[in-house]
Formats: sequence, structure tokens, C-alpha cells
Amino acid sequence: MEIELIAQLRERLPSHPLLKLGIGDDAAVLDGAQGPDWVVTVDMLTDQVDFLLDEVDPRRVGRKALAVNLSDLAAMASQPVAAVVALVLPRDNGMELALALYEGMIPLAEEFGIAIAGGDTNSWDGPLAISVTAVGQTTSRGPLKRSGAQSGDWILVTGSLGGSILGRQFDFQPRVREALELAERYELHGGIDISDGLSRDLAHMVEESGCGAVLDLASIPISEDAERLAEQVDGTTALGHALADGEDFELILAVPDAEAQRIIADQPLDVPVTAIGAVVDEPGLWQLNADGKRTFLPVGGFEHKFQ
Amino acid sequence: MEIELIAQLRERLPSHPLLKLGIGDDAAVLDGAQGPDWVVTVDMLTDQVDFLLDEVDPRRVGRKALAVNLSDLAAMASQPVAAVVALVLPRDNGMELALALYEGMIPLAEEFGIAIAGGDTNSWDGPLAISVTAVGQTTSRGPLKRSGAQSGDWILVTGSLGGSILGRQFDFQPRVREALELAERYELHGGIDISDGLSRDLAHMVEESGCGAVLDLASIPISEDAERLAEQVDGTTALGHALADGEDFELILAVPDAEAQRIIADQPLDVPVTAIGAVVDEPGLWQLNADGKRTFLPVGGFEHKFQ
Repeated sequence: MEIELIAQLRERLPSHPLLKLGIGDDAAVLDGAQGPDWVVTVDMLTDQVDFLLDEVDPRRVGRKALAVNLSDLAAMASQPVAAVVALVLPRDNGMELALALYEGMIPLAEEFGIAIAGGDTNSWDGPLAISVTAVGQTTSRGPLKRSGAQSGDWILVTGSLGGSILGRQFDFQPRVREALELAERYELHGGIDISDGLSRDLAHMVEESGCGAVLDLASIPISEDAERLAEQVDGTTALGHALADGEDFELILAVPDAEAQRIIADQPLDVPVTAIGAVVDEPGLWQLNADGKRTFLPVGGFEHKFQ
Repeated sequence: MEIELIAQLRERLPSHPLLKLGIGDDAAVLDGAQGPDWVVTVDMLTDQVDFLLDEVDPRRVGRKALAVNLSDLAAMASQPVAAVVALVLPRDNGMELALALYEGMIPLAEEFGIAIAGGDTNSWDGPLAISVTAVGQTTSRGPLKRSGAQSGDWILVTGSLGGSILGRQFDFQPRVREALELAERYELHGGIDISDGLSRDLAHMVEESGCGAVLDLASIPISEDAERLAEQVDGTTALGHALADGEDFELILAVPDAEAQRIIADQPLDVPVTAIGAVVDEPGLWQLNADGKRTFLPVGGFEHKFQ
């Protein structure tokens, strides 16, 4: 629904002279004049949708609510500075729950050197909802945008993909340091983090860039979690999970040819960086077949395609 | 619960070198280096608590969700720049509801010249929750803080108070222009907006300032709504409503003597500015009696006190 809503609203939302990048990217960018620009992103997580409060330690929920926003700042290759937290708590044990959520957020905020700068706390008869807004600053390289991918760029991903539902959906490391390191040492054209799944988020990025993407499916780094899930009789291959599963919170990057070659050779991060395809002029997602031809790759529905 | 939570967390929340003002004020302030500082505030509104979606046009809900944040920026005498919006929508008619909420926000954003810069939209089986984060910039006068009140300051309020439940709770005008006008032309020491009620919010301000306040109850500007409510047999006087009712979203200001006299004489705004008391060293809220003595004024519970 969000995509449909954005499509309806995009042209109608008011702007501001200081707004350099608005709706449609991982975060908004505000003009910092002589200083760095400011980057703002918000995500709301809710019980029964993003987590089951009956089954998960609320500290992991708090951590995740902050981490997903740090991942958005990472996707912009921006330096996190502060976060504000809006909570609506169920009335039963609300205070205890609020403290546990903050106990999950505080260590992550400390790890990434950001302030928890304020918030708003409410109660109701409904389930828990937690909305975190994170604020960061761009580096001298400027923000990394979804819309910056260019035909001919390589598509790189950090880490390995799929099966985050086995636990990584809560305990992932937002790729802030990795994004800053790459942006400082290499020229990057475009970026997005994987929240909706590799294929969906890659499609978002290239669509925002007015391009398409061809994937070499055999090169996609598949996580052990995806392998484990595929071994269960769930009708989806490990590759299917790597392509379609959400909440990897790894980075997809569009990188010019020579720079991409350097990154792949250098492997400058603690996590692998893998080349999985290329940006092309033709819109949409494509897979590269053994005969060198492309066939259309549907976004989503991989559960059926890769059985 | 929020006050108790803040008390527990305040010393534990991580900070950042760029954070100039954190939890405990109407908004956080981030260092803008050579440029203006940035001000960030978040508020979450929820169905059944802040509004009854069955009974109110969702456009008014959307407007209010943005307006309460503009009021927080007004309390900091800051210039609004942009807002981001996190929604969790009930599954039935979610898209229609989301559009109506934005239709309520957009005209207010246009009126105040701010961007709607991004958001996050979700659905669930629960009721509507809407969290808006507003970002603004301080003026050359710097942010107006809760903690700036000083003994001897006059306490001024804009507009008239009480009875917002009759409609003003949705249709109020955030006092952004008024705050900027006053901050530009006069020296102000402290400020807060009235969300929890005059007595509670004044108590917050003077507590953050390490002071107390004495009110001349006869001078408090009582709204027609408060009078109308009091005429109903609800056991609360109009003054009781003006003191205790939430959601006036007027400004309480602590202003040094000579400046306050100028403001009262000039009446520089389209709404009245009224002197209602003074900041004193002694902590707590007090009322000035006819004999010139002070008696303690309980925060809240006015329903009983002013019958």
C-alpha cells in the first residue's frame, strides 16, 4: 500500500527550499548550508506485524526499532547523530515494557555513538507500536541516493541474504560503518537497504534511477539461514529466500565498473561484498541465463518460481 | 507515565556532541554549526485516546497530528521546515484513511510553509496510530527552552484557555508565527506550549527551570468554550477548565519584567497576550490570594477544587 500511497501523494506533498530530497528515498535530506546536510528517516514497528510481543524479548524489539532506522541512514551513506522515539504502549505493564524497549535501544545507540534525544510516550487499549525517527548527517561525499544508479553500474550487496526470520530480523547489524567506509574510499552511484527483500528493493532502486537490473542468480550470496529454511519443507529454495525474504538489512549498491572491481578485489569490509549483476537501461528486473540471454524476473512470487 | 519514564531514563540515555538539548523539553536541539541549529520533535496520536475515528473527520485527525508538532516547535520559538509521517492503519479502508489523513496535513503544511518530506506506512488489525516528527530551525535568538524561566519573570499566555474539547483540540492554530514574532521583538526567557493543561505545563516549565510560579487566578484568560462547558452540569468551573483542560496549544512564556510590560502594552499579536502571574524561587505552583498571601495550588484535580 505504501507504494500506491506514495504514487498518489508524491506530486501533492508540499516542499521547502531546504528540502534537497523528499519522499521516495530511504530518508529525506535537508540542506545544512555551510555544514553537512541533515538526513531524517522514520519507521514504525507494530506488534503482530513486525514482531510478536508474546514471543520475543521486548529489548530485541526496541533494538530493532532503532536498528531499522540506522539501516536507512546507512543506505544514504550518512552518519547517524540522534533518534527520537514515539511509543504507544498497551496499558498492562506499559512502564515495564517501555523500560525494556529503551534497554534494547540504549546499547545500540551507544554502539553507534548516537543520542536518544527525546520522545513521546502514550498508552492505549491496543497493541504496542513504536516509531523511531533517526537523524544523521551526510559526509563530504553527499547522500547516497536510490536514484543515482546508472546503466553499466555493477550491483553489489553486502553480507549474505535470506532467512532473516530465523533471528537476524532482530539481531542484524545496520551497515552504517560499512556504508561510510565504502562511500569514503570508493565512488558509489546508488544505494538502498534490503528491508522488503533483495528483488523488491533492487527494483525500487533501479526504478527510482530510471533503469533496470540484470541479476546473475548464481552469484547471489545465500545465507545459512536461507539454506536452513529451504531444508524445511516450505516450498521455497534457498535462492528463493535470498531473493524474496525481507529484513536482511544488507546494502544494495550501484557502483561504476572500475570502482566495483576495486571493491570486489579489496574486500575492504568485515563482511563480504559480492557482485550480483548490473544496471541496465531497460526497466525492470531480469535474470541472466546460461545462454547469455535475459528473461524477466518477477518481483515477489519467488516462492513459486524457485521451487 | 511519561514523566516517570523520563525520570528513570534521563540519566541513562546516550548523548552526542551535536546534541545541545535532549529529553525533557518540547523538542531536541542539534548543533547546526555555522548555520541555525536544528530542532526535532515527535508526537504520536492514537484512535480512542486522542480522537475517536468513528466520530471525527480523519482530515481533522491528520491536521492535528501535524499541528501538535508545530506547536512544539512554536514552544521552542523555532521555524518549522519539514515533517515526516509514520502511520499504522487499520486494514479496512486503510488507503482511503491514509489519503484523508494526508489531505488534512497538506493544507496546514502549506500554510506554515513546511515540507512533508517522507514517511512510513503500515497496516495492522489494530486501530489507527499516527506519529509525526517535525524538524525546524532556531532563529538567531536561539531556541526558547522550558528551563530558561527566572525568578521575577512575568508569566504570559497567548489566547484564552479551557474547553478545547468542544472542537479547538482539532482546529487550533499552532502559535508558530506568534512565537517567532515575540522572540524576534522581545527578550523571552522560557516557553512551553499547553498540551496537558495550563497548570501542568506551567509546572513543567518552572520545574525544569528550578523555580516555582505564583498565579493570579483572576487574570487567567478563560475561553468561551470553558464558559460553555462550565454551564453544563459537569462540576467544574470555567476557571477550573482554563487551569486544567489539555490541548489549548497556546503558549506559556516566562518574560523578564520590562519586556513583559512592553508586550502587554504593545499587544503585538492577533491574539491577546495576558499576564497571569510571576516566576518565583520557591518550587511548585501557588495562587495569589486577595490578602496578598500565597497558597499552594495543586497541579491537576482542579475539577474538585473549583466547583
